[in-house]
Amino acid sequence: MSVSDVTSGDKTVTLEMLQEQLLTLEQRVEQVEESLPEDKIALIVFSGELDKVLAAFVIANGAAALGQEVSMFFTFWGLNVLKKKGSLAGKSVFQKMMSVMSPDTTTELPVSKMNYFGVGAKMLRKMMQDKNVDSLEDMIAMSREMGVTMLACEMSRDVMGINDDELVEGLERAGVAAFLAESLRSRTNLFI
Amino acid sequence: MSVSDVTSGDKTVTLEMLQEQLLTLEQRVEQVEESLPEDKIALIVFSGELDKVLAAFVIANGAAALGQEVSMFFTFWGLNVLKKKGSLAGKSVFQKMMSVMSPDTTTELPVSKMNYFGVGAKMLRKMMQDKNVDSLEDMIAMSREMGVTMLACEMSRDVMGINDDELVEGLERAGVAAFLAESLRSRTNLFI
Amino acid sequence: MSVSDVTSGDKTVTLEMLQEQLLTLEQRVEQVEESLPEDKIALIVFSGELDKVLAAFVIANGAAALGQEVSMFFTFWGLNVLKKKGSLAGKSVFQKMMSVMSPDTTTELPVSKMNYFGVGAKMLRKMMQDKNVDSLEDMIAMSREMGVTMLACEMSRDVMGINDDELVEGLERAGVAAFLAESLRSRTNLFI
Repeated sequence: MSVSDVTSGDKTVTLEMLQEQLLTLEQRVEQVEESLPEDKIALIVFSGELDKVLAAFVIANGAAALGQEVSMFFTFWGLNVLKKKGSLAGKSVFQKMMSVMSPDTTTELPVSKMNYFGVGAKMLRKMMQDKNVDSLEDMIAMSREMGVTMLACEMSRDVMGINDDELVEGLERAGVAAFLAESLRSRTNLFI
Repeated sequence: MSVSDVTSGDKTVTLEMLQEQLLTLEQRVEQVEESLPEDKIALIVFSGELDKVLAAFVIANGAAALGQEVSMFFTFWGLNVLKKKGSLAGKSVFQKMMSVMSPDTTTELPVSKMNYFGVGAKMLRKMMQDKNVDSLEDMIAMSREMGVTMLACEMSRDVMGINDDELVEGLERAGVAAFLAESLRSRTNLFI
Repeated sequence: MSVSDVTSGDKTVTLEMLQEQLLTLEQRVEQVEESLPEDKIALIVFSGELDKVLAAFVIANGAAALGQEVSMFFTFWGLNVLKKKGSLAGKSVFQKMMSVMSPDTTTELPVSKMNYFGVGAKMLRKMMQDKNVDSLEDMIAMSREMGVTMLACEMSRDVMGINDDELVEGLERAGVAAFLAESLRSRTNLFI
């Protein structure tokens, strides 16, 4: 027993014991650090309605501006946001029907309420313009510039028969596991 | 003062002081560990529409496959997912009306868009089948096998007059507090 | 080398070294603590439908009762929840149209399904009353009493031309950055 050992209660503490305890605690802290949410947010864009999609991009761009890493996972009707030009080649009858009834580009997205065959969407766009709010298309361009990751749900694409050449460039194909990998480490997750 | 004491600035450090500091830090780490999100995800299934419910189960099963503990809290229209067979006995007039207008089983769930009196849902089911995607009923069975916890919102059941014998077996009755207990510890929370 | 120094492998450990390691670890723990989610939940109320808004307030009040700090960010149709009395003065044509087609107060909010020109909402309210469930208006009053923070989305207000005197008192005007500041520190985030 060295002269510097400390006796507390029945136990004698040595420098060696303290060192070991410190090492154990360091390992616990390391595990905690790995388990912490990261500076990320993950959004599922399920809806293909102009008002909801706008909300998604306002949140995405706001988070990116705050330095968060942003992932948007487009699935079901949300895939309409990423379409550039419809093509019916190679589609089944049902896929053709769904394609024809779906918007061709973002400029055709309806609103979730008061749509009245497109009047609602036009109205909302005009109201935004009057107030100098960016259009959806500008917001999407800004998202891309800020490095927002856009994932296109593989399963939805497959079921709906949406081909690569119908979607805008620069998307990552992804399944639910890829989305969850982001989502489980994110501070904020939203289903829109 | 022992020979091993360290003098840094004006302070003299002893083994005993270090031990105390280590203990304090250990307690802080313990608190952090208790406050960390756990390997859990919690989903509120509010919607009773086929497309949204499918998304919920794809996410639930994907998360369970990744080793996450999954809780699904079915409320309002989401309770329709858990129905097996309608019965009008013991219901008020309004509860009867709501029951008659609601789907009896999952196979009758509509889609959120392009429903056209059930055509949309049939179309979506056929498109999924063509692509060998599991049906909703298979996905629900898989969730149960993987140990996903399904909670039926007590308040919604009460308001809508949904009896025990109308719901599938193996559900837990739960209030919002039970849901929140899971949700506040979860990595991912979604309102679907 | 003091008598209490410990030799492990090739390294000699001194009290001074341990002290330094402890300090470094303390700083890591501090960073972890700052990065942890706080006892908060953040809800985006995008929808203006009675059933969804009810769900939002049930969750908000439940979380507040569990000691969580609750923020509700009302945007788009969700702003209808906060209206007290419509006024068309100073609105553009489109803003007037939207105002006239929107509910004037919470008692006029529709339901998301089976609305049939307001019958669904009245039915749901009656069914809730029959079961002694608090009305939406009571729930909102309770939220206020429990200190739930209610934020009105600046951009939506601006676009839709909703004036201060159309909204209830005690709201904070807020942009997406203010919402995100709360959301990124919250345990649970939901888009309703």
